[in-house]
Amino acid sequence: MADPISNLVSQLCRLPGVGTKSAQRLAYFILDMPESEAREIAKAINDARDKIHHCPICGNYTDTDPCAICRDASRKTGVICVVRDARDVVAMEKMREFRGTYHVLGGTISPMDGIGPDDIRIKELLQRIDEGGVSEVILATNPDVEGEATAVYISKLLKQRGVKATRIAHGIPIGGNLEYVDEMTLLKAMEGRREM
Amino acid sequence: MADPISNLVSQLCRLPGVGTKSAQRLAYFILDMPESEAREIAKAINDARDKIHHCPICGNYTDTDPCAICRDASRKTGVICVVRDARDVVAMEKMREFRGTYHVLGGTISPMDGIGPDDIRIKELLQRIDEGGVSEVILATNPDVEGEATAVYISKLLKQRGVKATRIAHGIPIGGNLEYVDEMTLLKAMEGRREM
Repeated sequence: MADPISNLVSQLCRLPGVGTKSAQRLAYFILDMPESEAREIAKAINDARDKIHHCPICGNYTDTDPCAICRDASRKTGVICVVRDARDVVAMEKMREFRGTYHVLGGTISPMDGIGPDDIRIKELLQRIDEGGVSEVILATNPDVEGEATAVYISKLLKQRGVKATRIAHGIPIGGNLEYVDEMTLLKAMEGRREM
Repeated sequence: MADPISNLVSQLCRLPGVGTKSAQRLAYFILDMPESEAREIAKAINDARDKIHHCPICGNYTDTDPCAICRDASRKTGVICVVRDARDVVAMEKMREFRGTYHVLGGTISPMDGIGPDDIRIKELLQRIDEGGVSEVILATNPDVEGEATAVYISKLLKQRGVKATRIAHGIPIGGNLEYVDEMTLLKAMEGRREM
């Protein structure tokens, strides 16, 4: 295989879920496609890295300052939904229901990986709260060990400041099946039961 | 989602096997990774399109003229293995057994898609044969309708020129199971049976 092809294959291998075999398939596809289209893919990668940065307020990826959500006057700045990643904001926005703002942590506390509270955007969240006007912080980190620890850690800081901290509900997903759900989820679903 | 991100997502969607969901995952991964690594992926795409072209002899992708295989004096130029795509050459070379040369057609005859004999590199193959010294042409197109039709079409032209044409064997793959093999493959395996 010619050097520029094998280099392209090894670069594509860096992408998640792309092994050598599929990187090879992608590389030949990129060689086979019209040249302008291949160039557009490269340009889109460079453009994204040129124009996208973190919103100075919420930390979400944006090409404007502040981001479209933080600029939107119709959104309630008093309710902040805390998520781990920018992609979690996309998931939340798909719901078309939440009208507050976000705070993207850019990670979760994980001592095993050497990530402490100072390595994620907790300080920036507290600054926003100290500026006043925040009535509720929804902790929407993932229901895994790190996400849970991060939510607990932040909720303590919020209580000190007298700000209401809520956690998104865990339970059986819609369309899910009791039989196939793991015990932890079932436990959370039982704990979180409500009167009908 | 900011425009440069959604543009990156739609560009990545052009790649085979990449749907909106995984394109989104790839796009955020590209934004999250160190900037230099993201730039290297874009550069690898541009480099491949800058440097890679078709070998003037065999039609394989190469960054040299002619390609490494056509330049290799130890290979038998009298035996030409005809394949559809450049990736088929990679598959053949992995075998480390074939010491002849290749001819990449760049497609197969497919009247349904409007691809006739003149749209693939058959003319160039006949030129190589007319230059003399070719004793055998191995037709290694895929065992599908188009590949079979292309092999039959080329074999007729070769017979007119008195050049031996062979077809790679079809049958049960190694590790395959009679029970799960389709009838056409089984038929080919029976037809191709050899005395032990």
